Amino acid sequence: MKAVIISIGDEILNGTTVNTNASWISTQIQPIGIDIYEVVSISDNAAHILATLNHFVSNVDIILITGGLGPTKDDITKKTICTYFNSELVFHPEIYARLKAAFEKRNIPFTENNRDQAMYPDNCTILDNPLGTAQGMWFEKDNTVIACMPGVPFEMKGLMTNQVLPKILKRFNFPAIVNKYFMTSGISESFLANKLEPLEAILPEHITLAYLPTPAVVKLRLTARGNDENQLEQDLTAITNQMRAILGAGIYAEEPIPLEQHIGNQLKALNATLATAESITGGKVAHKITLIPGSSDYFRGTIVAYHRSVKEQLLKVSTTTLDKYTPVSEETAMEMLDGILSAMGTDFGIAITGNAGPTTDGKAEDVGTVFIAVGSKTEKRVKKHFFNKNREVNIEYACMFSLHELRILLTEYLVKA
Amino acid sequence: MKAVIISIGDEILNGTTVNTNASWISTQIQPIGIDIYEVVSISDNAAHILATLNHFVSNVDIILITGGLGPTKDDITKKTICTYFNSELVFHPEIYARLKAAFEKRNIPFTENNRDQAMYPDNCTILDNPLGTAQGMWFEKDNTVIACMPGVPFEMKGLMTNQVLPKILKRFNFPAIVNKYFMTSGISESFLANKLEPLEAILPEHITLAYLPTPAVVKLRLTARGNDENQLEQDLTAITNQMRAILGAGIYAEEPIPLEQHIGNQLKALNATLATAESITGGKVAHKITLIPGSSDYFRGTIVAYHRSVKEQLLKVSTTTLDKYTPVSEETAMEMLDGILSAMGTDFGIAITGNAGPTTDGKAEDVGTVFIAVGSKTEKRVKKHFFNKNREVNIEYACMFSLHELRILLTEYLVKA
Repeated sequence: MKAVIISIGDEILNGTTVNTNASWISTQIQPIGIDIYEVVSISDNAAHILATLNHFVSNVDIILITGGLGPTKDDITKKTICTYFNSELVFHPEIYARLKAAFEKRNIPFTENNRDQAMYPDNCTILDNPLGTAQGMWFEKDNTVIACMPGVPFEMKGLMTNQVLPKILKRFNFPAIVNKYFMTSGISESFLANKLEPLEAILPEHITLAYLPTPAVVKLRLTARGNDENQLEQDLTAITNQMRAILGAGIYAEEPIPLEQHIGNQLKALNATLATAESITGGKVAHKITLIPGSSDYFRGTIVAYHRSVKEQLLKVSTTTLDKYTPVSEETAMEMLDGILSAMGTDFGIAITGNAGPTTDGKAEDVGTVFIAVGSKTEKRVKKHFFNKNREVNIEYACMFSLHELRILLTEYLVKA
Repeated sequence: MKAVIISIGDEILNGTTVNTNASWISTQIQPIGIDIYEVVSISDNAAHILATLNHFVSNVDIILITGGLGPTKDDITKKTICTYFNSELVFHPEIYARLKAAFEKRNIPFTENNRDQAMYPDNCTILDNPLGTAQGMWFEKDNTVIACMPGVPFEMKGLMTNQVLPKILKRFNFPAIVNKYFMTSGISESFLANKLEPLEAILPEHITLAYLPTPAVVKLRLTARGNDENQLEQDLTAITNQMRAILGAGIYAEEPIPLEQHIGNQLKALNATLATAESITGGKVAHKITLIPGSSDYFRGTIVAYHRSVKEQLLKVSTTTLDKYTPVSEETAMEMLDGILSAMGTDFGIAITGNAGPTTDGKAEDVGTVFIAVGSKTEKRVKKHFFNKNREVNIEYACMFSLHELRILLTEYLVKA
């Protein structure tokens, strides 16, 4: 089963918008057994859209299109699809009435160009989009399915989840497929590959192992394909047990969740609270933690101590420590940890200090050095890291390793609890 | 002049890596007069790489390829290019020696599979990459240029900036092109389009205006193409003057810099300091500000007051205010601002409180409501916003509008100074 994702819109081609839609769609359709053959971005140009459709329609099973469904004159996807199918736009009074009512409810003037948003090709199945004005569309041609969705990410996600994916699952006969996830942190991809090499060597033909690495976290996915789901589950049992034995505490979860969500679950299980003291990461750890809905249950807050005076006054790092060991030191990280625990009165804390580059406060070898302290009132630890990427990437690594080190500590608390 | 960007790598197709390389490359090559015809992501598959090269080579002038140049067996771009050109890999002893020395300097064992990183096709010009082990490659075929770069973003950026772009500029006869940027904040794209409609209607054929919108910020780019750069500069003078007259204080810069960098420039000009108090944004404003190198000159720090107790204890928001007006209120935002100014002793502050959704502390109409206060000890202001997107996007809007409101205030201070 092969799919292509086509993103339509000048804003993607000119680089204003990063194509996060395509990567999100991939993560949704790959696990059900669809290979992504190609991801293509093209501009709002009818000839190019038509050529691209013709190029792919006989080669893939599913064509997923995002973008170009708005009410402005640039948005030509709908009209072009009509040209492609030789179909016509028809007016849907019930959609028109619903849109008008929604505008009135929000006190927004309903201009007549919104009438376009109630016009759809006569050969499509309309996919209801309650999150916006442009509805999704579903077409079938020979053995290929074409689904069109708006480019606005949260509208696209709603349509994919509630309409397109269920229809794809119904439309095609998928082989049985079972995925098992192992989320690891703190272990490099090459080290994992080394450890898992003997297991990989004896995997049966119908089971594959994929490495999906991001900073400090590697997602491992075992995929079994066949005819009988129960059989696949059985086939996987021995292998997943071996994965657990080999990777041990390297695994933080067996479902695909980010590390910050796992830490939230750990803190909830411990009925404990967290705060962070950040220098080099400038609040990004807190931002990651607070992107998780419900994080207010366990997350209290952060002091970003970018300037020395904030380290001294709000985190009570001593002048002697800063002078003797410098702000980028094990000693400063530990005192920042003490400071945040007492300032916020939390059970656990993270403290991070380092030099992200490109410039340095003195010696150039300092760039990329990061000290991460994690702990509670009774158990504190600090680790030195060295990241040799650019400023932005060094910051991301520092964030993710701080979460990794906290999760190791929380795991120990959970074992004891 | 047309270019295509080809990203090679399973990690992009399966969604593990978002293709930020392609969007960055677009922002670099479009302004010099190159249209991006298509952005394509394909897997590490020789047949597919060859088919894609054949598909584009006679249709575009420039093919930019990223990814697949590493030392592992997945990385087949180099070999496939050899197949394409019917060329052979040759060993470069000077590259080998340099790589070996670099490994030894960093105390990393030099394994023999790194020997591959000294092998390059005999028909390419090697593009020096001091940031990694894979060198870039430059090929010419008929009238088309093919440049290959590693997929690691900071290595690719270095190669594009220092090697590929200068070579492209030298290789092709570009028409003269002049770009003028107007960075605006706080004005919606449709409002801008309305205001600029009369000006757009009378633009001469050789001058175009592009709208590049992101949350709270719209980048406007005027592009003039012709034969004589001086003439184009002259042609643009009257138009840029009209843009300034129409947009007035909506413009924050006439070079393409992010809002957080502009605010840094304003603060440096005022010799002033800044701190933020963040609830809904969870430290993301601070993170944005501290991504700018040199931000330690003006940025002191942040208190993320996610929990009510932090608002009370560290930001000194009164219990009465929190009880009477709730944490998501104008009154709370203003007291948070007072609190951060006195806790950090800065000249300026930003305070943000709101409900990002999806859940709410009580009434559902609260979701998306954000109060942003900005000010100094003597001049404070607060504004209510409503963002009706999802959690992540609401947070991004809140961040960017807080920066917008601060820049308006700082502009007033700069006028007075």
